[in-house]
Amino acid sequence: MSYTKGEKIYEGKAKVAFQVKEDESLIYLFYKDSLTAFNAQKKGDFSEKGQINNQITTLIFQFLKQKGVESHWVESPDENVMVAKKVEIIPLEVVVRNVLAGSTAKKFAIEEGTVLEKPLVEFYYKDDDLGDPFISDEQALMLKAATQPEMDELKKKALKVNECLIPLFDEVGIQLIDFKLEFGKELNGNILLADEITPDTCRLWDKNSGEKMDKDRFRRDLGQVKEYYEDVLKRLREVIK
Amino acid sequence: MSYTKGEKIYEGKAKVAFQVKEDESLIYLFYKDSLTAFNAQKKGDFSEKGQINNQITTLIFQFLKQKGVESHWVESPDENVMVAKKVEIIPLEVVVRNVLAGSTAKKFAIEEGTVLEKPLVEFYYKDDDLGDPFISDEQALMLKAATQPEMDELKKKALKVNECLIPLFDEVGIQLIDFKLEFGKELNGNILLADEITPDTCRLWDKNSGEKMDKDRFRRDLGQVKEYYEDVLKRLREVIK
Repeated sequence: MSYTKGEKIYEGKAKVAFQVKEDESLIYLFYKDSLTAFNAQKKGDFSEKGQINNQITTLIFQFLKQKGVESHWVESPDENVMVAKKVEIIPLEVVVRNVLAGSTAKKFAIEEGTVLEKPLVEFYYKDDDLGDPFISDEQALMLKAATQPEMDELKKKALKVNECLIPLFDEVGIQLIDFKLEFGKELNGNILLADEITPDTCRLWDKNSGEKMDKDRFRRDLGQVKEYYEDVLKRLREVIK
Repeated sequence: MSYTKGEKIYEGKAKVAFQVKEDESLIYLFYKDSLTAFNAQKKGDFSEKGQINNQITTLIFQFLKQKGVESHWVESPDENVMVAKKVEIIPLEVVVRNVLAGSTAKKFAIEEGTVLEKPLVEFYYKDDDLGDPFISDEQALMLKAATQPEMDELKKKALKVNECLIPLFDEVGIQLIDFKLEFGKELNGNILLADEITPDTCRLWDKNSGEKMDKDRFRRDLGQVKEYYEDVLKRLREVIK
């Protein structure tokens, strides 16, 4: 099937979404080369970043599909293009942490690298103007961001993704520290994993060297951002068929 | 029974706790005249503040006892002294909001004074060094601040206190906007309402004038702090026997 890029629906920090002309229920997602951090206060880019991230997401969504986790992904017709089901994004970023790092480590003054007894699931309210604040279930209900059964489903699905991704990354020598997911609702209310899973949205540490292989290289000016993103893609390609 | 002040156990921002010499299971709580805000970055005091707050807490804990809500309160042998059961304080501040004001209104850019469809319960992790951060159930579990059944009990008890206090304050012409509770565990694991309930820990708005009758007068330099605290005590004395 051919997919023609139609009207622009939305432009985010890392992707642009267009309507698919041939099918009202599909979107054409173009992955950009830009990179942002700290609620877009820090901006950058590198060549081929869009296609690397599109290909990583494609591999991971294909892998998750094999494991029974449905996502919005349909097909990737071009190196930096993904065709996906049109969903209404639930305004909660779902973060799963296996090891403490970043904002939560800082919030509780716990050393980065502390391994958690069990995975921690957190919600952040998706609102750039508010700085995507950390939110409890009760606050999310107040804002009508989701219902309690929906939030319970998000947590369950996020933990399932974690159970699938830990051994996947482990097999390619990477420790999955944490990651952020977004979910969307189809018209019938069915909840699908959406957005992307890439070094932009995960913390990935090399198991041997401990080196960061993710956006923290950009956030913390560690250099070789492109090289590490490419390495993640290369390693995943070796195990996901 | 007589209660003699023993060894000092702990000094907080608004109270000092001493051992009761005659009974190992009791503490002697002395209410201070000091007033702090913004995690003690702003400090003040006024004469008789300690005795006003002790008397307000005493009245409210007596009232709640009549309504079936157990607290640590035993007796108030002096104007600014409360004898209470010794408990291990659970390190979660439990906030109940009927109307949005303060930090949560700011966090979500919602206008102060917005009436909530139903009361919102929030937890804040009691740690001055960390600035008492807002916390989810999952994060509280990670920190072992409480168990899930304990947190469910805290939420239930806090909502029960709210159901009792709304009509009490309403009867004396005050709208109960929000309040903060602390709970403690007895040696047998029984959870008791602890700490205090005063204009330091509640937002109270006069129903007719809309005037603030609580610590926001101090936080926001509105003046007449003592006069409004005294007025709250005077009004409660008229209805709690």
